[in-house]
Amino acid sequence: MKVITLLTDFGLKDGYVGVMKGVIWVISPQAQIVDITHQIQPQNVLEGALALGRVASFFPPWTIHVGVVDPGVGTHRRPIAAQLGEQFFVGPDNGLCTVLVEQARLEKKKIQFVHLDRPEYWLPEVSNVFHGRDIFAPAAAHLSNGKLIHEIGTPIDDPILLKIPSPEQSGSGWKGQVIIVDNFGNLSTNLTRAHLSGLDEVSVKIAGFEIHGLRKTFGDAQPGELVALIGEANDLSIVVVNGSAADRLGIGIGEAVEITSV
Amino acid sequence: MKVITLLTDFGLKDGYVGVMKGVIWVISPQAQIVDITHQIQPQNVLEGALALGRVASFFPPWTIHVGVVDPGVGTHRRPIAAQLGEQFFVGPDNGLCTVLVEQARLEKKKIQFVHLDRPEYWLPEVSNVFHGRDIFAPAAAHLSNGKLIHEIGTPIDDPILLKIPSPEQSGSGWKGQVIIVDNFGNLSTNLTRAHLSGLDEVSVKIAGFEIHGLRKTFGDAQPGELVALIGEANDLSIVVVNGSAADRLGIGIGEAVEITSV
Amino acid sequence: MKVITLLTDFGLKDGYVGVMKGVIWVISPQAQIVDITHQIQPQNVLEGALALGRVASFFPPWTIHVGVVDPGVGTHRRPIAAQLGEQFFVGPDNGLCTVLVEQARLEKKKIQFVHLDRPEYWLPEVSNVFHGRDIFAPAAAHLSNGKLIHEIGTPIDDPILLKIPSPEQSGSGWKGQVIIVDNFGNLSTNLTRAHLSGLDEVSVKIAGFEIHGLRKTFGDAQPGELVALIGEANDLSIVVVNGSAADRLGIGIGEAVEITSV
Repeated sequence: MKVITLLTDFGLKDGYVGVMKGVIWVISPQAQIVDITHQIQPQNVLEGALALGRVASFFPPWTIHVGVVDPGVGTHRRPIAAQLGEQFFVGPDNGLCTVLVEQARLEKKKIQFVHLDRPEYWLPEVSNVFHGRDIFAPAAAHLSNGKLIHEIGTPIDDPILLKIPSPEQSGSGWKGQVIIVDNFGNLSTNLTRAHLSGLDEVSVKIAGFEIHGLRKTFGDAQPGELVALIGEANDLSIVVVNGSAADRLGIGIGEAVEITSV
Repeated sequence: MKVITLLTDFGLKDGYVGVMKGVIWVISPQAQIVDITHQIQPQNVLEGALALGRVASFFPPWTIHVGVVDPGVGTHRRPIAAQLGEQFFVGPDNGLCTVLVEQARLEKKKIQFVHLDRPEYWLPEVSNVFHGRDIFAPAAAHLSNGKLIHEIGTPIDDPILLKIPSPEQSGSGWKGQVIIVDNFGNLSTNLTRAHLSGLDEVSVKIAGFEIHGLRKTFGDAQPGELVALIGEANDLSIVVVNGSAADRLGIGIGEAVEITSV
Repeated sequence: MKVITLLTDFGLKDGYVGVMKGVIWVISPQAQIVDITHQIQPQNVLEGALALGRVASFFPPWTIHVGVVDPGVGTHRRPIAAQLGEQFFVGPDNGLCTVLVEQARLEKKKIQFVHLDRPEYWLPEVSNVFHGRDIFAPAAAHLSNGKLIHEIGTPIDDPILLKIPSPEQSGSGWKGQVIIVDNFGNLSTNLTRAHLSGLDEVSVKIAGFEIHGLRKTFGDAQPGELVALIGEANDLSIVVVNGSAADRLGIGIGEAVEITSV
């Protein structure tokens, strides 16, 4: 049995997530299922792709990541599965797995996609509006049972991938942007430890504010202070200690961030 | 071991759900537990009954559905368990299992109720305010361990059942109502594919709006468009593509919906 | 395998909780993991300690409670593990386990603490901002696998413990305070059945209101009525039937409550 993760924009109010687990357990009774998040902003595929990229590598090898942020459900968009290094992805062909693909490429791992076009691995009745339950959950359960991706679908080589925003060089520094705002209001950027490594004492400009230097962690500054630090994904993060940087700065995803040497 | 589902109005803030799982695992250490939802509107038994009816059939045979929407906790209302076809229900005797009963009747399945009146299958100390933890979780765990319902309670034949709102014929069409508003603001009605089957090209009237024809799925219309389609439960649904129909129309559960031939 | 519970202030939006489960399953593939709550108010260690104290005793013996409400992450505050009677605690050394310690003391159970200072039981790379993933989840997984606490850390005898607010005698009665406001708006106090036992017919004063006598349960009063009753933790609770006492009285945690004989 393999671990199955679920990431959706369904929220937790309606039983949509629970019913996917029921469907999985009918087919793969011992599958271990874990929620990543169900609070992706509705239809925000990029947000889902980034969230999945943050966590996938921490799961056991051969974990099956089911992602359902799926504005194209029931249209001609294909349902797909992929083997991306030692991880599986199951979900819509809309770029939701883009960061996992990038990671597998960086590590020169095997990358294979299939079109989930074999109804014998779906629920008997498939709605036009809930492929998470009717196609993706059953497909993931069959993978958990040991099926190979090319047993449950037909190989394709043209999956849709998103353009993930990447930093650009700017003089001696870099321009990037906020890509995640978490539950605390902490701002994660697409600038990483690697972008910082060439710089001397760093200055961070965001939303008209300038922050000098990096702190090691929250507790090295006073409550209420706006600081920059290296976050949990080796990313430059802007936070307010015991508070919300998103609220303080009045900004969100997409906001420009620039780092320079002082 | 059998799967145990949990549906409550407890929310997720307080540990009430987690503690029920602890109680279950003390008695049935390998039970697989899954959350359906804990965001039923407080004390709204009908909403809970409809939500449970939506998902129960997707779980493995002999799943035990524990429902706790329980304004009468600690009063004379009975704690009950039921076998409804190949599903179990455990919860208060207030109609929360009504839709499961209707489904079992339609399929001519066995229906049996017991009054949970045997304290040896409860926690040793029972509060007046939290039977989810003290009675229902232990009872479900004993069922998961293989006990039969008539071992843990005394047969009864007068369970309380709710009147579920049902559509009425109206000329050549039908009048129904909105019965679920989901996390996206999609509106599900008690009108189903069966009600639509007799009609030619259909017109849907709701809240002063009139929608002509059904779309196959969200992606067949433009973002922001108000459309009618067949939802995930074979129900007539009214949605705004990539938006909230509940917000657009300013309506909620109970709103009248009429379908007619154009 | 032992049960592992998770209690944090992470919320459910960001995948922080899911990734901890992934880390646990890499090390202890069969561990059973359960969420207590992830909606502790950010950085509110006392709220976390009280929430953990409410539920811990309902879990199987040798359950491992992982608590992460951790404003001092990455500073000199120690990561710790503890054996508190037949329960384990893993988390920051900031008092989050205080109520579990008090319970073990009352029951004259064994109490042992260790400083988690052995990196071989952590993730290979440890961030300064997410010890829940990098230290506490792996440590808990090793305990679930059967390691002893003194194998994964060095004994200490000076853990930080909080002062839990306790009631004071007041004439013939007691003065206490609201310590938990739940999802329904029910108010739990630090006054218990024991404080009430010496009194005749009781009067409860809170926020300028006076409530005469205790009800047995919600359903013994009318919807909308403000009543006092014994809650699920044997605590004096003030509730509005089918409503929110917190909203009605406009109060929250810390509000004074006094009980006297009428």
